[in-house]
Amino acid sequence: MSAAHFADRLAHAIRQTGNPVCVGLDPRWESLPAPIRERAQAGPGSPAEQRARGYEEFCLRIIDAIAGMVPIIKPQVAFFEECGPAGMAVLWRVMRAARQAGLLVIADAKRGDIGTTAEAYAQAYLGDSGTGPGQGGVDALTINPYMGRDTLVPFLETARAGGCGVYILVRTSNPGAGTFQDLTDTTGRKLFQQVAALVEELALADLGSCGLGSAGAVVGATYPRELAELRQAMPHVPLLIPGYGTQGAGAADVAPAFGPQGIGAVVNSSRGIIFAHARKDLVGRFAPDQWEEAVRLATRQMIDDLAPHCRPTPSNA
Amino acid sequence: MSAAHFADRLAHAIRQTGNPVCVGLDPRWESLPAPIRERAQAGPGSPAEQRARGYEEFCLRIIDAIAGMVPIIKPQVAFFEECGPAGMAVLWRVMRAARQAGLLVIADAKRGDIGTTAEAYAQAYLGDSGTGPGQGGVDALTINPYMGRDTLVPFLETARAGGCGVYILVRTSNPGAGTFQDLTDTTGRKLFQQVAALVEELALADLGSCGLGSAGAVVGATYPRELAELRQAMPHVPLLIPGYGTQGAGAADVAPAFGPQGIGAVVNSSRGIIFAHARKDLVGRFAPDQWEEAVRLATRQMIDDLAPHCRPTPSNA
Repeated sequence: MSAAHFADRLAHAIRQTGNPVCVGLDPRWESLPAPIRERAQAGPGSPAEQRARGYEEFCLRIIDAIAGMVPIIKPQVAFFEECGPAGMAVLWRVMRAARQAGLLVIADAKRGDIGTTAEAYAQAYLGDSGTGPGQGGVDALTINPYMGRDTLVPFLETARAGGCGVYILVRTSNPGAGTFQDLTDTTGRKLFQQVAALVEELALADLGSCGLGSAGAVVGATYPRELAELRQAMPHVPLLIPGYGTQGAGAADVAPAFGPQGIGAVVNSSRGIIFAHARKDLVGRFAPDQWEEAVRLATRQMIDDLAPHCRPTPSNA
Repeated sequence: MSAAHFADRLAHAIRQTGNPVCVGLDPRWESLPAPIRERAQAGPGSPAEQRARGYEEFCLRIIDAIAGMVPIIKPQVAFFEECGPAGMAVLWRVMRAARQAGLLVIADAKRGDIGTTAEAYAQAYLGDSGTGPGQGGVDALTINPYMGRDTLVPFLETARAGGCGVYILVRTSNPGAGTFQDLTDTTGRKLFQQVAALVEELALADLGSCGLGSAGAVVGATYPRELAELRQAMPHVPLLIPGYGTQGAGAADVAPAFGPQGIGAVVNSSRGIIFAHARKDLVGRFAPDQWEEAVRLATRQMIDDLAPHCRPTPSNA
């Protein structure tokens, strides 16, 4: 058994925590607990630097709140990038803190480019010497397939070399996902199905002992019929499933994703967990300085909600 | 005439310099002039910080060398992102220096995401308060269409509000571009043609007085037949054309792109210009401390090469 294979590390984390929950770190400034915003704004620096500092406190406290409860987190790079270089520095401190706390980390960057440029992005996130200089990268990166097969391979090769993975966009969770993803060719196959076929092929080339590859797929829970079909079409592909919770999908929608061993997918929730203190059904139940209790409650609710559908079996390896 | 419209600002810059050359800033470490690498490595900081410092000197000297010669430059974000937060700080200093030198700037980031995440990326590059805190953003950003129409609109709205533009990937220049872009539907239309139709529609919604919109398209010169077809299919769309030079395309390949006024496209060259000192046909002609002379010569060669095919007419506005 190759302990370093991404899919095996992920399977281990899912079995250890007993659930497939991925907490999305999308630190929108307006939604942060007021005391964190006020503290950040009272400090030095430009508005962007202040925001970045607020994001750091917020994300580090979330990591403390959920470490041990869930297997994996997914920072959304855009919100950190919006804060400039200070934001990117915070992103890396947050991702390192998460890994030190025993969480796997997916950097949700949706990068994609050609040749040596793809290699540079891959190094930035998945390489030894990448953006966390001398600190190693993250466990997985989301990437975009539009530019073609030869633009995905450099990411995958860098990922595999370090025991990491990639999640390739297949069927996204937004209302307009179908604009191009639903384009149907003369044989009746849709674009997203063709992307799925390629991801399955890439995954098969490098299976961990758990039976899954290091090439994963992003499949939105907001299209449950497609999700069930895609699970069938990509039996060796770990899935990352956005769209649960605030975006509208429920536990039954994601049920087909987990596969027979219960390790086939992680389900992401961002706002529904990290801003739980402001959720309609929870607002007023927690004092302003107890927002982490709301985070923990929301995480527990999601774990319980998914439990009937996802029962990770013990490893046979 | 709306001086602030992106297409009008670009048309003005093309007319003023008399050419459509875009210099791509792709600062690969191994290709930098040796004295710059040695100076950077002799300074303080981590390897990534040293690389970033080398990129800064290199890019600032290129900007000095070509300011006034060409209308526009295109930094490739990946190479800066690979150097971590220090690299992103350098990227923004380089982009600000370019704008101060009178060059338009396309940030080649190929970003794409949904909803408020797309807004965050748009703010990061195109917003007033974005990544260059209080310093404004860049003139245009490259974006990826895979996730659908509703993921492009937030970028376009932010761009338009600031007199900026976006370049949407339509037909990329890499050998594997066709993996998904060539998918053909039952009416015979390919994916990239459908993306083109959407870009034309988005451009038409907001034309500058030059007759072009703020929604642009990336179309590789390495597929000249498609390039000519796409120029016809997108008459109101400014084109960004990679693939000239090192990637293999020549002036005749891009000739159809410029349109009747000669302002319809900018043609990018990266390695062929910025690493001209190491080009097979130029190597040995310049002393190590005269690499900027090679950059200027290569820029002049490209301008002259394109001149018979692109004669920007004076503005009628």
